[in-house]
Amino acid sequence: MRRPLITFVSDFGRDDWFAGVVHGAIHDVCPEADVVDVTHEVPPGRIAHAAFVLEVAAPDFPPGTIHLAVVDPGVGTERRALAVRAHGQLFVGPDNGILEWAFADPAAELRSVTEVRYMRIPVSRTFHARDVFGPAAAHLAAGVPLERLGPRVDDPIRGAHPQPRVTAGELIGQVMFVDRFGNGITNLTEAARCAAGFQDGTQDTIEVEAADRVLHGLSRAYGDAPRGTLVALIGSSGRLEIAQVGGDAAERLGLSVGDEVRLRLRK
Amino acid sequence: MRRPLITFVSDFGRDDWFAGVVHGAIHDVCPEADVVDVTHEVPPGRIAHAAFVLEVAAPDFPPGTIHLAVVDPGVGTERRALAVRAHGQLFVGPDNGILEWAFADPAAELRSVTEVRYMRIPVSRTFHARDVFGPAAAHLAAGVPLERLGPRVDDPIRGAHPQPRVTAGELIGQVMFVDRFGNGITNLTEAARCAAGFQDGTQDTIEVEAADRVLHGLSRAYGDAPRGTLVALIGSSGRLEIAQVGGDAAERLGLSVGDEVRLRLRK
Amino acid sequence: MRRPLITFVSDFGRDDWFAGVVHGAIHDVCPEADVVDVTHEVPPGRIAHAAFVLEVAAPDFPPGTIHLAVVDPGVGTERRALAVRAHGQLFVGPDNGILEWAFADPAAELRSVTEVRYMRIPVSRTFHARDVFGPAAAHLAAGVPLERLGPRVDDPIRGAHPQPRVTAGELIGQVMFVDRFGNGITNLTEAARCAAGFQDGTQDTIEVEAADRVLHGLSRAYGDAPRGTLVALIGSSGRLEIAQVGGDAAERLGLSVGDEVRLRLRK
Repeated sequence: MRRPLITFVSDFGRDDWFAGVVHGAIHDVCPEADVVDVTHEVPPGRIAHAAFVLEVAAPDFPPGTIHLAVVDPGVGTERRALAVRAHGQLFVGPDNGILEWAFADPAAELRSVTEVRYMRIPVSRTFHARDVFGPAAAHLAAGVPLERLGPRVDDPIRGAHPQPRVTAGELIGQVMFVDRFGNGITNLTEAARCAAGFQDGTQDTIEVEAADRVLHGLSRAYGDAPRGTLVALIGSSGRLEIAQVGGDAAERLGLSVGDEVRLRLRK
Repeated sequence: MRRPLITFVSDFGRDDWFAGVVHGAIHDVCPEADVVDVTHEVPPGRIAHAAFVLEVAAPDFPPGTIHLAVVDPGVGTERRALAVRAHGQLFVGPDNGILEWAFADPAAELRSVTEVRYMRIPVSRTFHARDVFGPAAAHLAAGVPLERLGPRVDDPIRGAHPQPRVTAGELIGQVMFVDRFGNGITNLTEAARCAAGFQDGTQDTIEVEAADRVLHGLSRAYGDAPRGTLVALIGSSGRLEIAQVGGDAAERLGLSVGDEVRLRLRK
Repeated sequence: MRRPLITFVSDFGRDDWFAGVVHGAIHDVCPEADVVDVTHEVPPGRIAHAAFVLEVAAPDFPPGTIHLAVVDPGVGTERRALAVRAHGQLFVGPDNGILEWAFADPAAELRSVTEVRYMRIPVSRTFHARDVFGPAAAHLAAGVPLERLGPRVDDPIRGAHPQPRVTAGELIGQVMFVDRFGNGITNLTEAARCAAGFQDGTQDTIEVEAADRVLHGLSRAYGDAPRGTLVALIGSSGRLEIAQVGGDAAERLGLSVGDEVRLRLRK
């Protein structure tokens, strides 16, 4: 069998021992798993932030990858633990919207993780990444079928997942994430552009408006214009980004998550 | 043989190359080891901080785990290198108190790492994580018996390990660690409570005093009270914690390491 | 076959998903590889910083290690992708000077990575760590010969790599890096000292001048003098360092990258 791959997103940071201990809990169940830390720097309790990271990162991983995502302010309360098969991959995390992207697959199959034999005993009320989610991901990696983890779920909690809208010849989205390089990554995907009827726009005839600036045309690469130029381009996850060549666009424009970005055809 | 597991705690940070190079030194000796970074963000030279991380994290790892812990201001001086078998696990680090928790096992067996064949040659005087501790951990992972590493040690250096004390019907401990979520983790363990005769206290009859606040009862989970409530609860490592629902208790209360926390039964 | 080892240096940080996604791309090609994150905290776009990290860290890894180094402001432009065999190891990264140290091996063999079958398809114009460099490193780890990746290159771009110079009985170098502990690591190597004719200097007769301070003699270890003492010593990578016992020399002296450091024999 191919060596199983588990990714891990959380708000645990790397100053404490929490993420490391979850690695240990996974190793205990499935020592041969390759556990890749995607990020543990989700701001504490920010579920939507983690959901976006998962949405952007998961499609880049091979089929069969198991994604473990834990931002869990409701740990120890009545919230359910979910395991999901979707997009040809598996997802494990709390039922609080963090797995939103998995539910976008119409064929998604959701299970509530209730089978005690796949948990670490005793289950604490404060650290389910160690006691429930990590072990569930590890058992999936070790070949346990999803169906064994617990009963079917049809009503998962969904996050607020802002969708682009079309008005008067414009496609209006928003900044979803500002990355380390200061690029403002939006929810304007290729699919959204096509649905809005902008599929005819060539790179040159497109106009992007963000932070009261109008950017003409789409660049093809971050380094495709003189240093300091503000550019719009389609980034590596297929989303429209606002960037500055060799600089930090978000800082320069005062761009932050939730800010509106408009795309239209030049007249 | 089961794939060996090595954990790694240090004050090396992740901005430089030090932690990565130690991974390389381990791989060189035992390529199949799974090396889990617990944290490298111990403040430079803060041995007690690392000792606490090890004390809290180690019990969560499987039997046979090898814990590599390096905060080593005395590197290159006469301080010894230790390898210890305790609590069903193995520990490797400098003789400066960082392995304090391992010594708490009355059956602990301590060795001084002196056998040159288990070191990386030439041994530098400034980087024993690479040249002595990492290779020793890797040789243990590869199956070398502890006894081969060097002679028995009976007088390890012990850290200042503040113990709770009992006075006038109170159990008095202190904040040992403030975690990423602002939870103040104390040295008041279940064992300390029982030893102090508080085993009869139900969750409701216990009272906790910290930073001039009195908290009534123990909560069962971080999310078990309205947002903003200050709560005391038993955290995932079995220690009493001061937390704020959905917030940062340490910031709100000005709580920091060393601050007194008192536990008593309500009258 | 021995489990292959890939190291990874970048300016991706760990707050976003970029480094994790590259791990996924490597796993997809060569699941058995052990991928060690050296650092992802290279300041955005700072090629020389990454080149120095690689120069210092690479020699500590076993023969056959594959070093993946990506700081790539020119991604998607005409800059080439390089794969290099040098110093008994392999190196993969953009042709912008980041692999400078590999070229220092007179027997270095350089290839331009052009073979599409060793890339991830479709190749984006913004994320070659995922689409070109990571897969190339993984294919090398899986046993693909370097020669298969593409045609020979003889004219790589070289970084500014400041060399020490000798004047009037002094060896003059500079601070290349300030590490987490505040040690100022210079480009004054053992080889530079010998070449300059300082090989006769014993530890005691050497004098080091930095930030208008003169330090007498070389210390043997960081802890070899009373707390607070400023010392010069040869660090773990064989370079002269300016350090403070139990403290932060760079902060105390206002030492930063590029500052001059002079070494001479005491009269």
